[in-house]
Amino acid sequence: MYSVTVRDHMMIAHSFKGEVFGPAQRLHGATYVVDVELSRAALDADGIVVDIGRAGETLKRLLADLNFRNLDEIPAFAGRNTTTEFLARFVYDGIVAAIRRGDLGPGAAGVERIKVTLHESHIASASFEAAVDMRG
Amino acid sequence: MYSVTVRDHMMIAHSFKGEVFGPAQRLHGATYVVDVELSRAALDADGIVVDIGRAGETLKRLLADLNFRNLDEIPAFAGRNTTTEFLARFVYDGIVAAIRRGDLGPGAAGVERIKVTLHESHIASASFEAAVDMRG
Amino acid sequence: MYSVTVRDHMMIAHSFKGEVFGPAQRLHGATYVVDVELSRAALDADGIVVDIGRAGETLKRLLADLNFRNLDEIPAFAGRNTTTEFLARFVYDGIVAAIRRGDLGPGAAGVERIKVTLHESHIASASFEAAVDMRG
Amino acid sequence: MYSVTVRDHMMIAHSFKGEVFGPAQRLHGATYVVDVELSRAALDADGIVVDIGRAGETLKRLLADLNFRNLDEIPAFAGRNTTTEFLARFVYDGIVAAIRRGDLGPGAAGVERIKVTLHESHIASASFEAAVDMRG
Amino acid sequence: MYSVTVRDHMMIAHSFKGEVFGPAQRLHGATYVVDVELSRAALDADGIVVDIGRAGETLKRLLADLNFRNLDEIPAFAGRNTTTEFLARFVYDGIVAAIRRGDLGPGAAGVERIKVTLHESHIASASFEAAVDMRG
Amino acid sequence: MYSVTVRDHMMIAHSFKGEVFGPAQRLHGATYVVDVELSRAALDADGIVVDIGRAGETLKRLLADLNFRNLDEIPAFAGRNTTTEFLARFVYDGIVAAIRRGDLGPGAAGVERIKVTLHESHIASASFEAAVDMRG
Repeated sequence: MYSVTVRDHMMIAHSFKGEVFGPAQRLHGATYVVDVELSRAALDADGIVVDIGRAGETLKRLLADLNFRNLDEIPAFAGRNTTTEFLARFVYDGIVAAIRRGDLGPGAAGVERIKVTLHESHIASASFEAAVDMRG
Repeated sequence: MYSVTVRDHMMIAHSFKGEVFGPAQRLHGATYVVDVELSRAALDADGIVVDIGRAGETLKRLLADLNFRNLDEIPAFAGRNTTTEFLARFVYDGIVAAIRRGDLGPGAAGVERIKVTLHESHIASASFEAAVDMRG
Repeated sequence: MYSVTVRDHMMIAHSFKGEVFGPAQRLHGATYVVDVELSRAALDADGIVVDIGRAGETLKRLLADLNFRNLDEIPAFAGRNTTTEFLARFVYDGIVAAIRRGDLGPGAAGVERIKVTLHESHIASASFEAAVDMRG
Repeated sequence: MYSVTVRDHMMIAHSFKGEVFGPAQRLHGATYVVDVELSRAALDADGIVVDIGRAGETLKRLLADLNFRNLDEIPAFAGRNTTTEFLARFVYDGIVAAIRRGDLGPGAAGVERIKVTLHESHIASASFEAAVDMRG
Repeated sequence: MYSVTVRDHMMIAHSFKGEVFGPAQRLHGATYVVDVELSRAALDADGIVVDIGRAGETLKRLLADLNFRNLDEIPAFAGRNTTTEFLARFVYDGIVAAIRRGDLGPGAAGVERIKVTLHESHIASASFEAAVDMRG
Repeated sequence: MYSVTVRDHMMIAHSFKGEVFGPAQRLHGATYVVDVELSRAALDADGIVVDIGRAGETLKRLLADLNFRNLDEIPAFAGRNTTTEFLARFVYDGIVAAIRRGDLGPGAAGVERIKVTLHESHIASASFEAAVDMRG
């Protein structure tokens, strides 16, 4: 399996509901350094997994919707805890939708697996990873 | 698959038996920066893989048993080479036992896979990874 | 000059006032990975700059006052932009006060210079550095 | 599964053919920081995946063939884009061949899976990963 | 002294003249991860060293002139070895010129010291650092 | 001021004497990732601070004397606490002696300042830095 990984980041505020979160129930924030890994079994005719430039731009555009925001005020997240795990899935879904729309070019239809990792500090991170079928 | 990773470290002395180890047969030491990655297919009701605070405390407590010690003098390791690989497995087993004891809370019973990585320098690391069944 | 550096982190929300900040005028947040470097010309009798354990605990206690908070609501910061630069100075002042109170032990009175660096992402950081005179 | 990872690097020049590469169609270059991860289900009698010293030397020797070169002039790469993905596979093939030749010692025949990752900057990397059967 | 640091990168080809360079006399290449640290004694009225957004854009524009190029063909570098040290100075001079032109805004005239570091691998870097007088 | 930094590492055992060290009074160990930064005001005729290849080899040779050893048994360290700070100075002195012996070539006589940093974990490091006069 071949893979390519691109990195960008966002800086957001949010709070959590639930005793398990302790002091993180208060309004606080995080820098998330986000890695998106795209995998496929064979390279395309150019010898790449995807156009890494477009992959980076797609990630930046996706994060721009959340960057410098209070996630508690985003309607789509109402009633949800925007944990690092949850946001990893949110970015994953956004990347899948972007590939389906053709934002990464027709070659990206060959992507078979995506992993999104959010580093929230030098000692903690979370990720979501799953196979995708872009040809359906 | 969702995952969460926490990091801590320990500083130990040890020596190895076997020609393959060359100068590492002498008593020497290492800082191990330890990453524990816990994975599961679905998040719990709070939107998390596990309570990341308890995961970090569990790892710290586990490493405290070895930290600032000469591993050659620990009875449980007698006759074994405490290689980075071996210690990755040791930490893995300790995390599994801690989850079974309930140290990470009842939600942690949903963990399906654990990977432990020990970084021994800026150019070398080792890991142990395996599926777990906490509901047995 | 000898120095010792310890690292910890905090996760906060805040907003900035001023056109120069663009979208960062909105309520957002950050993880700050904080490095405190303490320097002196000569080591103490134990062969150290300061007790690194106490230095780490002091930093953790200092960050605990801000961690998981919205800095916009902290009275001491009213009317100020809590920029990364500003917070580097705030941590610096806190470390100086802690040394004067004896939190790092009597040996820490020998510290002559302190540098505090806050990493806000993988591509940006800010710091404050100045000489100190602990014997006055 | 146990694994061991070793790191080294190479500095090369090259150019790409194809509109997708934009300015990277011009002759340019890269530092590739290369991680080779070797995995197997059980440790050998010494308690290791492979002799980490020999693994590091093998990687260094392999990279020496490309290091400080213009890849556009290497006959084996004629007509191919030496993308990060392509080079990850090239290193993978080289490691497999080295293990088959016995360069990592007889114990390395137990290796079951290899992953090679090339970091081309602080924000981008590519990898190739596949199972191997050394006992065939 | 306060400082702010921004990071970007470039990927170039070049060769060196002189026996001291050994195999690096051949055409090869490098990824340079570039850190620019800007320092001043007092913050401006907004509480910052410089507009970090404009600092990042200025660095990106500066590196764009060299990015994806063979430095051996750039007239301004004719007869010079474009070593990491030399390029650190080149970026430094470019940042100074940009501040003088007002690219970082009028507030940047308060910058008193600049350090540019180029990381060429995980084990080597070079830098150039000097005081500046922007008010002359 | 121009500077060049090279990195290597060593893995040692040792123990400390003194209550301030707490559990580190026991025999334990550390991986030290060592950065040596060499600085001078002007580059030599080749456009470099020093021959970076020879600098790296010199550091490796210096660390080889301590690597895979129990520092408590090294006569030169008898009665001393081999703290991270102390070892930073030890490496500094070794680099100065190597330059004086000509190990880095005649050009290295231009070095004016040296900083040695030892990273003992992902959250702690120590350094020694001082001016040198190689032309005396």
